Amino acid sequence: MPKELIAEEDESVVIGMWRGPSEMPTYKLTYFDLKGLGEPIRMILTYMGQEFEERRIPLEEWPATKGTIKYGKVPILDVDGKRMYQAQAILRFLAKKAKLAGDNDLEAYEIDSIVGVITDLISLYVPLWQITDPKEKEEFIAKFKKESIPYYLNELDEIAGKNNGYLANGKLSWADLFFHGWVETLEGLISTEIVKQYPNMLLGREKVYSTPGIKEWIANRPKSL
Amino acid sequence: MPKELIAEEDESVVIGMWRGPSEMPTYKLTYFDLKGLGEPIRMILTYMGQEFEERRIPLEEWPATKGTIKYGKVPILDVDGKRMYQAQAILRFLAKKAKLAGDNDLEAYEIDSIVGVITDLISLYVPLWQITDPKEKEEFIAKFKKESIPYYLNELDEIAGKNNGYLANGKLSWADLFFHGWVETLEGLISTEIVKQYPNMLLGREKVYSTPGIKEWIANRPKSL
Repeated sequence: MPKELIAEEDESVVIGMWRGPSEMPTYKLTYFDLKGLGEPIRMILTYMGQEFEERRIPLEEWPATKGTIKYGKVPILDVDGKRMYQAQAILRFLAKKAKLAGDNDLEAYEIDSIVGVITDLISLYVPLWQITDPKEKEEFIAKFKKESIPYYLNELDEIAGKNNGYLANGKLSWADLFFHGWVETLEGLISTEIVKQYPNMLLGREKVYSTPGIKEWIANRPKSL
Repeated sequence: MPKELIAEEDESVVIGMWRGPSEMPTYKLTYFDLKGLGEPIRMILTYMGQEFEERRIPLEEWPATKGTIKYGKVPILDVDGKRMYQAQAILRFLAKKAKLAGDNDLEAYEIDSIVGVITDLISLYVPLWQITDPKEKEEFIAKFKKESIPYYLNELDEIAGKNNGYLANGKLSWADLFFHGWVETLEGLISTEIVKQYPNMLLGREKVYSTPGIKEWIANRPKSL
């Protein structure tokens, strides 16, 4: 409603409406009832001390819901009524506010680059969601554990070894939240503890999990894969 | 070699070595002999007026080369001896130098978001490279043309219609180079002119192609898919 119209009715209401949204932005996250690509966003919001609402779509409702969402993908984030799409674009936007996106262009590149590597790993496991045949599923998981995980985790662990457990620039960034938020879903899906096998990555996880805001979130978050 | 050591030998050499690399950075792009994900990088470098060397790996040499490259992926960009990985991370880094990454965080988000949407489209066509059976290939292409292209191109064309043919913020950004550099490879691979069917995207292509630097590159670039 235009400001002027309300002002004619009741000046005090105008002030309330005008000030409210700009002082306290509202965040609403829509994702599956999973950690996955939603968890890094939840982590960064809690790191920022930002309250948010959640809509968790049950997996069985997704086929019917997909068509109603632009681009047919989640997560989406509504910020003061503006709808934001694409997990990494949302994360990078929030990370700048949270000072987790690097202090200069080269640091931002290091973060983006490692996020790209993680994305490559994610793209290799995504087909697993579509496999229904138990034998085929078992074979996929065996191959993924034998090939993809060591290939990527050895690299990531070496990087974390040079960065105090973090994935870029020797300090916490949204790349850490992206990996450690997501990887728990992978671990659950293939019933394998991955991170514990890589000491530098494990150190990174412990640092992320004990970061103020994130620590409280992890202690209180809903149980999900 | 430390500056001091050379200085003891010959002061004039020091000045030459010191000044050279910082004034004229060297760029070397390694990719396939394709447009694909390399072309947006080539476009942004020519837009910047930046000379660069190229190593174009013939597709038949890739299986033997892949193992020698960290993360097993191209493009990679060597900048003054620093090796950079991941097409989007490289593009975002260069785009900041070129002022094609948005003027503020919200503009940067709009670019990142649409790049994410284009990435989703790219991920749907990637399996095509692995299909060898002609009938299977034909079926894949038919489905891709019937489903994926209209789904994504209708959205992109609507966005371009609101942005003077561009994909974000009503002005040229690296999202435009990302799409228009890559899509020619898709068009060649499926022997179909896609962009011409979408008037606002076609306007965007014409604007990208006539941008100083990129225009000269397109007129003189090596022929490739």
